[in-house]
Amino acid sequence: MEFKISEVKGYTPQIGHLVSQMDYARKTTLEAVKGLTTSELDFLPIGDANSIGALLLHIAAVEKGFQIEIFDGRSPNEQEMAEWGDAYSLGEKGRKNIKGNRLDFYIDKLTEVRKITLKEFSKRNDDWLYENRLWDSNPSNNYFIWFHVFEDEINHRGQIRIIRKMLNFK
Amino acid sequence: MEFKISEVKGYTPQIGHLVSQMDYARKTTLEAVKGLTTSELDFLPIGDANSIGALLLHIAAVEKGFQIEIFDGRSPNEQEMAEWGDAYSLGEKGRKNIKGNRLDFYIDKLTEVRKITLKEFSKRNDDWLYENRLWDSNPSNNYFIWFHVFEDEINHRGQIRIIRKMLNFK
Repeated sequence: MEFKISEVKGYTPQIGHLVSQMDYARKTTLEAVKGLTTSELDFLPIGDANSIGALLLHIAAVEKGFQIEIFDGRSPNEQEMAEWGDAYSLGEKGRKNIKGNRLDFYIDKLTEVRKITLKEFSKRNDDWLYENRLWDSNPSNNYFIWFHVFEDEINHRGQIRIIRKMLNFK
Repeated sequence: MEFKISEVKGYTPQIGHLVSQMDYARKTTLEAVKGLTTSELDFLPIGDANSIGALLLHIAAVEKGFQIEIFDGRSPNEQEMAEWGDAYSLGEKGRKNIKGNRLDFYIDKLTEVRKITLKEFSKRNDDWLYENRLWDSNPSNNYFIWFHVFEDEINHRGQIRIIRKMLNFK
């Protein structure tokens, strides 16, 4: 397998760099959850933590949220809030409502959401990537927003790895 | 505060992109450990896990290891192995030998190592960043290696956040 950060066919140069980073992050997320059963995906290591399942759906929800904000230029509608809200916010509602799913369920969501991001990326160019944009009320650009999408995924992949370790101690 | 992925003064364009990502990762790592006491830094959430202190030193050790491999083009010598080996490998030796330090100790190590990386980056250019190089026996490039340095940091920052949460439940 090849591990390079570089241009990627089908995208402008910098978008390609971003895609190669997002691809690597996703590959490692999928490796981190390989073979997990539904009860393992539902396991809560401590009272106010999140299950691996909830973290997986959160990763998809964050990406979905930025698609709506950045590609569609709007806020999530009621239906989107109902589908993604708990996973986006995690916490109590995530613990209550995100469980009982098989691994495939989460992988399908991740894949389905990622497909839209890549399609939208392929229609845009590097100028768009550097366009200014607010992030949490701070000056930012589109590049940072999508960097944040994959860096948040990597953060949660780290947590998934540690929770998976704890499965052996429950 | 500004959050942008873009060029950074003092570096060639792509190295600047990398530096802006590494800077953001570091900022969030430091925020994640703010105010921790020595006993909190030494806390082990489960038997075979790592303390927050060990993870912080590991982040510095990984960067140090790639400095030696990539900037110096050699393997670590005995003195470097003695200083960094336990933090690089983590596990049993990390649990046994990395403890009793104040937060400042870890932050100083991180800062001292990062200073060298930035100095070396400032002497190189984007052609160097795209140079081919093996990573774990796979085709890779220097860009990927340094991407990996910050993505490993983000992974452990995620773990630090969850371990910090667990401190409330011990």
